[in-house]
Amino acid sequence: MLQSKLFYKANKNKTGNAESVSHDLLVRAGYVDQLMAGVYSFLPLGFKVLKNIEGIIRKNMEMIDGQELLLPSLHPKENWVRTGRWDSLDVLFKLPGAGDKEYALGSTHEEVVAPLAKKVIFSYKDLPLHVFQIQTKFRNELRAKSGILRTREFIMKDLYSFYTNQEDFDVYYEKAAKAYEKIFKECGIGKITYRTLASGGTFSKYSDEFQTITDAGEDLIYVCTRCSLAINKEIKAETLKCTACNNAEFEEKKAVEVGNIFKLGTKFSTPFDLKFTDRDGHDKPVLMGCYGIGLSRLMGAIVEASHDEKGIIWPESVAPFKVHLVSLPGAKVKTAAAKLYKSLQSAGIQVLWDERENKNPGEKFAESDLLGIPLRVVVSEKTLEKNSVELKERAKDLMKLVKVKDILKHV
Amino acid sequence: MLQSKLFYKANKNKTGNAESVSHDLLVRAGYVDQLMAGVYSFLPLGFKVLKNIEGIIRKNMEMIDGQELLLPSLHPKENWVRTGRWDSLDVLFKLPGAGDKEYALGSTHEEVVAPLAKKVIFSYKDLPLHVFQIQTKFRNELRAKSGILRTREFIMKDLYSFYTNQEDFDVYYEKAAKAYEKIFKECGIGKITYRTLASGGTFSKYSDEFQTITDAGEDLIYVCTRCSLAINKEIKAETLKCTACNNAEFEEKKAVEVGNIFKLGTKFSTPFDLKFTDRDGHDKPVLMGCYGIGLSRLMGAIVEASHDEKGIIWPESVAPFKVHLVSLPGAKVKTAAAKLYKSLQSAGIQVLWDERENKNPGEKFAESDLLGIPLRVVVSEKTLEKNSVELKERAKDLMKLVKVKDILKHV
Repeated sequence: MLQSKLFYKANKNKTGNAESVSHDLLVRAGYVDQLMAGVYSFLPLGFKVLKNIEGIIRKNMEMIDGQELLLPSLHPKENWVRTGRWDSLDVLFKLPGAGDKEYALGSTHEEVVAPLAKKVIFSYKDLPLHVFQIQTKFRNELRAKSGILRTREFIMKDLYSFYTNQEDFDVYYEKAAKAYEKIFKECGIGKITYRTLASGGTFSKYSDEFQTITDAGEDLIYVCTRCSLAINKEIKAETLKCTACNNAEFEEKKAVEVGNIFKLGTKFSTPFDLKFTDRDGHDKPVLMGCYGIGLSRLMGAIVEASHDEKGIIWPESVAPFKVHLVSLPGAKVKTAAAKLYKSLQSAGIQVLWDERENKNPGEKFAESDLLGIPLRVVVSEKTLEKNSVELKERAKDLMKLVKVKDILKHV
Repeated sequence: MLQSKLFYKANKNKTGNAESVSHDLLVRAGYVDQLMAGVYSFLPLGFKVLKNIEGIIRKNMEMIDGQELLLPSLHPKENWVRTGRWDSLDVLFKLPGAGDKEYALGSTHEEVVAPLAKKVIFSYKDLPLHVFQIQTKFRNELRAKSGILRTREFIMKDLYSFYTNQEDFDVYYEKAAKAYEKIFKECGIGKITYRTLASGGTFSKYSDEFQTITDAGEDLIYVCTRCSLAINKEIKAETLKCTACNNAEFEEKKAVEVGNIFKLGTKFSTPFDLKFTDRDGHDKPVLMGCYGIGLSRLMGAIVEASHDEKGIIWPESVAPFKVHLVSLPGAKVKTAAAKLYKSLQSAGIQVLWDERENKNPGEKFAESDLLGIPLRVVVSEKTLEKNSVELKERAKDLMKLVKVKDILKHV
């Protein structure tokens, strides 16, 4: 992609009203645009990051037998009345339709997926089943805050599992937890993301959250000093020791919840009469589980975890481009850079070329740091004198000269 | 994919209340599920088709310099008030938010993309620009009908173009029209889809629709008997002759609108003060165009155009799987089919294997015809006696025996 053609505008000055570091950086670098409080557009750069995160999540959900589908955002009121959440879920958007219809705007999809599953599940032979969706959800938050960390409209992956018995379900639940750890690792925040025991809300005694350590987080968690488990503050009083290793020493940390897995049990099977006929001929309720990850929040959490005073530092797995090719003034430079751009593209490398002629080197370097693409390749008259380009990893200070002909070996 | 594990349930009986052939077939074959009037879930089979259509559209939009982004569904009321459409667009969903906020639920995105473009367009040097989005839109239709052809919630691609002058804009508009023709051709409905002159509504005198001939369509169009242009009935009275070849003879056909391109001109630039500084230093309004395709409607139109009394006949480009492997009873058969399944998968071929043992051959064949996967490969004791499998294209009657070892040459 040529940078002069890219639909974005970077701003070198800190935004005065930013709600968090990730908010400031993502807006200033042109990844997202705030339409209003809690509602964001993902510009081409941000969209690419989102798609990369989506790809990592999709791959890992397919590896644990997830089948992808797409559920509606408009839900019939009666489904939410049936579970009692029409009145009890205060963040539920409600809207009038044609005639005297009333809809809920999907803030989660149990009320849709349970009755849907009832249409395909009849016998124990139909189970287990696992479906997932990656799509927009809506929450009428009283106060949206922290940029894309807590919004009124956001992108989520939710997987729903359907099982005949607790034992098999528990095995799958642990498998899903492992898949989550893999996802956060692949997104570059594995080391600071903790499986965290939390309240199960109205569903079960406990649930498992995945919490990423950051000062922008709204949650307080207690990380076991001996193993890698954490406990959410909300249940700390009742859980004095680590449930994994029995240690009683914890470190308090601020964190943001990037994922959450729940044992729903029969909470939603019962109101929708979702059951199966077992081997013994008896009808039994299906056991459900749900497994969520907020993609847009995850994108924000990655930036919170990976930046410096100059800008974003994207892990390569989610970066919008792998290489930022920056050409400085000079006629010869432009030709050499164009050739390099083509050869990188031909090798299947995602490259953004800053070929703009109305920016000085200082501006180009500052913007490159702000954008946070993993590898910067600078072509200038000086580097060309040595038949070379200058390579610099965004995450490191070291620059090195590499022969133009050897570039593909280094990227 | 193993068919016994697939999240779906086929129904061999015609649904009594189907609104169109595509509605009946897509629901019965387990591609979509109707949640309520005008609102559908896309089950794993339907999701795959949707993704294939999306891939074709995305590729062609990128080829005409489209940059993908994602715009919000929640829009601030004031943006719609500013264009006058808060009151005039009767299908606009309006919903209350926290506090005394009011939102529109995006039925189209001019009210969001024009003010967004204002943040990145300043000078003639920033133009032209082209962005597109593939996402859910909402319309509060009084009567939703014809299954997924006209719904309250649907998936659309919209590209928006931004130009400095009419001449360059017109060139791009024709380029986009050509891209549209390519998309419909790749989706297998090129021959029955006509570029159709239609009213430009409140935007311009004329617009161009892309209409696919089908009895389920709500539009009447007049197809020129000499060239390939058509005219929508709504402007037939004022357009007596074909604008392309001057012919005055037309054939009347029922059709469904699968795409629509508009010259918006300054209709949305003016209210949002979207302008650029030209070479001469003067500020001028940006010229906008918009280019829509309804993906879910397109999926329905493909089924309307391509089916028989037994079921769907997917064009290979959009089919959920390329091969439907059907194994009949027999221990040896299962082993041979499993081996074949693996070798097809290893060759990168998308294959659905009907390995179910509780279905008889007649049921399996009927369901295979209903699902409409392009190529059926049957393995039975009879075919294995000849070291062969039976091959049948869904679109043709002819079956042929092919040696097992030669299968990859034939699929």
